[in-house]
Amino acid sequence: MEKHSTTAIPLTSALPNKKQTVCIFGTGDFGRSLGHKMMQCGYTIVYGSRNPENSKLIPQGATVLSHAEAAETSDIIILAIHRLYYDFLGKLKETLGGKVLVDVSNNLKINQYPETNAEYLAQLLPESKVVKAFNTVSAWALQSGALDASRQVFVCGNDSKSKEKVMDIVRSLGLTPLDKGSLLAAKEIEDYPLQLFPMWKYPIYLSLGLAAFLFIYCLIRDVVYSYVTRNKDVSFFIAISIPNRVCPVVALILLAVVYLAGIFAAILQLYRGTKYRRFPDWLDKWMLCRKQLGLVALAFAFLHVLYTLVIPIRHYVRWKLSSNLIQQVSKNETHPLNTERAWISDSYVALGILGFFLFVLLGITSLPSVANSVNWREFRFVQSYLGYLTLVLCTAHALLYGGRRFLYTGSYPWGLPSAYILSLIIPCIVLVMKFFLIFPCIDRPLTAIRQGWERKPKHLYEPHKLSGSSV
Amino acid sequence: MEKHSTTAIPLTSALPNKKQTVCIFGTGDFGRSLGHKMMQCGYTIVYGSRNPENSKLIPQGATVLSHAEAAETSDIIILAIHRLYYDFLGKLKETLGGKVLVDVSNNLKINQYPETNAEYLAQLLPESKVVKAFNTVSAWALQSGALDASRQVFVCGNDSKSKEKVMDIVRSLGLTPLDKGSLLAAKEIEDYPLQLFPMWKYPIYLSLGLAAFLFIYCLIRDVVYSYVTRNKDVSFFIAISIPNRVCPVVALILLAVVYLAGIFAAILQLYRGTKYRRFPDWLDKWMLCRKQLGLVALAFAFLHVLYTLVIPIRHYVRWKLSSNLIQQVSKNETHPLNTERAWISDSYVALGILGFFLFVLLGITSLPSVANSVNWREFRFVQSYLGYLTLVLCTAHALLYGGRRFLYTGSYPWGLPSAYILSLIIPCIVLVMKFFLIFPCIDRPLTAIRQGWERKPKHLYEPHKLSGSSV
Amino acid sequence: MEKHSTTAIPLTSALPNKKQTVCIFGTGDFGRSLGHKMMQCGYTIVYGSRNPENSKLIPQGATVLSHAEAAETSDIIILAIHRLYYDFLGKLKETLGGKVLVDVSNNLKINQYPETNAEYLAQLLPESKVVKAFNTVSAWALQSGALDASRQVFVCGNDSKSKEKVMDIVRSLGLTPLDKGSLLAAKEIEDYPLQLFPMWKYPIYLSLGLAAFLFIYCLIRDVVYSYVTRNKDVSFFIAISIPNRVCPVVALILLAVVYLAGIFAAILQLYRGTKYRRFPDWLDKWMLCRKQLGLVALAFAFLHVLYTLVIPIRHYVRWKLSSNLIQQVSKNETHPLNTERAWISDSYVALGILGFFLFVLLGITSLPSVANSVNWREFRFVQSYLGYLTLVLCTAHALLYGGRRFLYTGSYPWGLPSAYILSLIIPCIVLVMKFFLIFPCIDRPLTAIRQGWERKPKHLYEPHKLSGSSV
Repeated sequence: MEKHSTTAIPLTSALPNKKQTVCIFGTGDFGRSLGHKMMQCGYTIVYGSRNPENSKLIPQGATVLSHAEAAETSDIIILAIHRLYYDFLGKLKETLGGKVLVDVSNNLKINQYPETNAEYLAQLLPESKVVKAFNTVSAWALQSGALDASRQVFVCGNDSKSKEKVMDIVRSLGLTPLDKGSLLAAKEIEDYPLQLFPMWKYPIYLSLGLAAFLFIYCLIRDVVYSYVTRNKDVSFFIAISIPNRVCPVVALILLAVVYLAGIFAAILQLYRGTKYRRFPDWLDKWMLCRKQLGLVALAFAFLHVLYTLVIPIRHYVRWKLSSNLIQQVSKNETHPLNTERAWISDSYVALGILGFFLFVLLGITSLPSVANSVNWREFRFVQSYLGYLTLVLCTAHALLYGGRRFLYTGSYPWGLPSAYILSLIIPCIVLVMKFFLIFPCIDRPLTAIRQGWERKPKHLYEPHKLSGSSV
Repeated sequence: MEKHSTTAIPLTSALPNKKQTVCIFGTGDFGRSLGHKMMQCGYTIVYGSRNPENSKLIPQGATVLSHAEAAETSDIIILAIHRLYYDFLGKLKETLGGKVLVDVSNNLKINQYPETNAEYLAQLLPESKVVKAFNTVSAWALQSGALDASRQVFVCGNDSKSKEKVMDIVRSLGLTPLDKGSLLAAKEIEDYPLQLFPMWKYPIYLSLGLAAFLFIYCLIRDVVYSYVTRNKDVSFFIAISIPNRVCPVVALILLAVVYLAGIFAAILQLYRGTKYRRFPDWLDKWMLCRKQLGLVALAFAFLHVLYTLVIPIRHYVRWKLSSNLIQQVSKNETHPLNTERAWISDSYVALGILGFFLFVLLGITSLPSVANSVNWREFRFVQSYLGYLTLVLCTAHALLYGGRRFLYTGSYPWGLPSAYILSLIIPCIVLVMKFFLIFPCIDRPLTAIRQGWERKPKHLYEPHKLSGSSV
Repeated sequence: MEKHSTTAIPLTSALPNKKQTVCIFGTGDFGRSLGHKMMQCGYTIVYGSRNPENSKLIPQGATVLSHAEAAETSDIIILAIHRLYYDFLGKLKETLGGKVLVDVSNNLKINQYPETNAEYLAQLLPESKVVKAFNTVSAWALQSGALDASRQVFVCGNDSKSKEKVMDIVRSLGLTPLDKGSLLAAKEIEDYPLQLFPMWKYPIYLSLGLAAFLFIYCLIRDVVYSYVTRNKDVSFFIAISIPNRVCPVVALILLAVVYLAGIFAAILQLYRGTKYRRFPDWLDKWMLCRKQLGLVALAFAFLHVLYTLVIPIRHYVRWKLSSNLIQQVSKNETHPLNTERAWISDSYVALGILGFFLFVLLGITSLPSVANSVNWREFRFVQSYLGYLTLVLCTAHALLYGGRRFLYTGSYPWGLPSAYILSLIIPCIVLVMKFFLIFPCIDRPLTAIRQGWERKPKHLYEPHKLSGSSV
């Protein structure tokens, strides 16, 4: 329904039912766009302006009056003006008393003012009922009707009835109101439209930094080395071969980094003997962006899969296979099947497939609507058991890919180990440490700590299981 | 929870708590199914029927009375009857006064009647509290318990308390009520179950038309031409080779068409000097189905990827490669690696991979639950920056695929250019026009217009940034 | 917003607004974690404890008092104690009268007690307003702030105002309250956190059982047979070749099993002549887990696609192709293109691609957020038409894959047919039966039955279409 409702409005509601009169203060872009949309949906709009006779930009069919006159016409006044100009509202205190004031304002940056705009307004006009709403909707979207993005309008306010009235307006415009509670939620609502993927910043920087480093590393190790020592131009490796080395390495390292946070947290809790002390800030942030880290890792894994699957249609690969074959033919050789190589080749590919499959499953359970439909037990089962299984499979995939290769000296041009060897360091550390953490002698106290037990309680010992007896 | 709650009900609630008595008028299919389900969930059901002694089809355990008697037994009366028969309710005006009447009716087509069924009912019985609900649920689904599809039940009505009562019933059946506001929303709710992907119609017609045209074009150019001029039967190209030409072309054209709408809108706004005039109808519709166009394009791109990746396992390709090789061997030739061809081959494949990757990202952010969890700034960032980047990558992919091929006359059987050349026309136009639109001298007035500035205001100039001063 | 709100709280809200005082009974793990989190969000917390002077484990800044004293300080009392200890609350009946009691308790297993904890509490203290909430949130999640999983907190209670108060607390902690209605919903809410994918159990057992059987079957047929009769070691088939036989077979069988349930249901309804009798239990359960069966089938199909696409990069396959070629060269043969084999090869691959494509579409429409945004008509269109089309395509894919192979006796080592032949049995049965069911002479009575008509009504015939006249 959400999908169709609004988009249908500009097309079908030629004659919508007449609805109540709403007053809008301010004839700037947002005020006009909102008024225009509301008139399309059947509302009568009265604009309040300082010099109403000069305000000619208002949508056709709307009225412009002075602020005081406009405020008289409606119980609901939408304030589409900047916070800076809220002062003058003080003069209208009496007219506005008891009415619903809808604050739609946004700031230019987070924490621009000590209190939120809505709370500031509520302080100025304590007898009006302030409702925060509409600030997350863009004027352009209202104007164009192209509401492809979120239809959600966050609403908060201290008076339920006023909120209900505003939510009815929101619904009638084809948007979905979301009650965020009292005016205390205004901070969150005002900060919301200013964010640009805040939780994704560090994971993306980390992965891009890693990818850039590895790209240069492989470039030197493969392309430059070939050119310098053998005068062979394999610069076309830049397009596929090198990305296909960088992507799996970044994916595996990021996946391990996701679980490394949990390992550190466990060690810290074991060391401190309690879970009730805050983690250091860096660990806190790390724990909080694990989901994003995992999804970035999945993106790199996906690229790796694509790069790998196109191998047989690459010109270079076809050329290499056929020149090998021609050599064999000219030497009149026939190699028998090397069963061991067949085993290694098949099993590292199979491990990679299974690892990627589980990784995709993890990614799907991260979708908001899927995550919302599982309970905690299910979520932990998926993210922790399946997650570690994914890490094990992917690490084994990388180990087998190497096979016996890392024993040969030919594999170390200029002494540089292959990228996949670098990729194995963190995953192996994580798996080894996790292995120790599931030893009963370590797991038991850790579980107790996570259930609330403390090794050195300040005064007295109070075990978790007896919590009921503490009543 | 949603996932499990209902499906669990028929299995576990052998002895649900006894709940209130609800009256249902009408013993048709929906009335019986709903009553049956409600009885399973613990309600006592009393049916109202014209000839109660003859109504034997009602679920076991329910009572049948005359309408007037049945209405006495409950505060909530569910009207599972056709709108045509609402008239007779007038006679029960007094009995029904103050009671909650739940209108569950649907019509056979959109705009069948001047007013919605619920509003018609509210006019007939102004002293009853009409609530619209349940019309989006199918009788079959209620009966079978197989509620795999939407659990959402849209509810609207002018009286909050009545709505709350109905929403409690909805919840107790394991469904999720969604408050759509006042009875004005009834139109939307009654139209909803009659739709069949309304926003998808044009994108799917357009893409199927394009695909059919291109299929015939390639059939003539490749299969028929081969047969006529060289008497070679390559009819098996129909299965994979030709679809793999059609799919990428359709995908690229549709993706360009998505952004073409925005280009037209920008030009129109620049020409008109205002954003406050409605776009012509065709542009409006086009703007509104861009998301669907993009998703159809993604579907074709996905097919293209699959068709491409299976190339090496095709019998024909294996045969061709080995016959080439046998020829080389018999002529005792060895081709050295053509580095330029390796570069072109690898880079067009790499561009395709990156383009597809970004395309999938765009598709994921179109999922309702993901789109709902990003704000406008984030959504525009993804859909506009990443979207154009995708278009650039995919266009470059097609250009490089062609490489120098379009210079050779052999590439034009019967003077017909290859399909990929056709595919480049619209993307190149879009990219060139976008290139001009981001020139500062054009971008600046456009941005101003989109922020509310108008070139020829009717009377006075009122810039956006001073909107506050207009108070 | 959901995504960012909570995760941001531990980082940014250094100085949240001061909020009301809330009392928590019980200083166990959950009580402390919840109190800690609430204090971070600006609440003043007073703990109630049996021996307040000994309770030193409480979060810094909180107060501990005796139960009676603590209860005096707040209108809202959160009971973070086991149900076993609810008895003692009887003594505080007067103090707690009229106050909001929030029951956060969980049991260890489903149906542990005859009535839910919340209802038990409401019986004990009939004058308090009991609200069930927070039981679906884990203490660990509250503590660590790592609320990656569901932010939804299910709330139910008989008093709207009390519920609204609790929902405000939920929102201020950055969680999303979901009103589940009256206290009758407590059963569902208390059972919820104890589930571990209840609807997935049978589909996963079935698929794993099938996969294990087929794995052993193929192992005997391919690896053991080769070893015994030809002394050839192809044990490496275990890694990819055999899984790539098992996966498509399991996928196809499961997909057919999804539709087999509907076929059985239709036959039962035709036989009984009514839709108003419950299906036998096994069919009921089967119908209810069709979505899960389908998704498991999709997972196997996805694995099959990956296993198939890596074929050309396998060492064994490369070896086999080149040894074939060397043989051809040495014999100086050149095979012309076998057009028929090219046709068969291309068309079974193309059918597979189209089938997988539609299967993915079906999977996407199963995502909760997508399923919620389509109406019943659209859902049935996708799941039934597209679903059967998928089954037809995949069955045709398997049939063509076999091609003429099953005529050769060489294809039956030890008389065992190939796995793909086994996979065709159920799909063919389903398609043949469906073919009969869409014959008008069978479809017409079935449709009538599904619209409510009954062949042998107990007393009188009352057709569906006249349901209106029954008023």
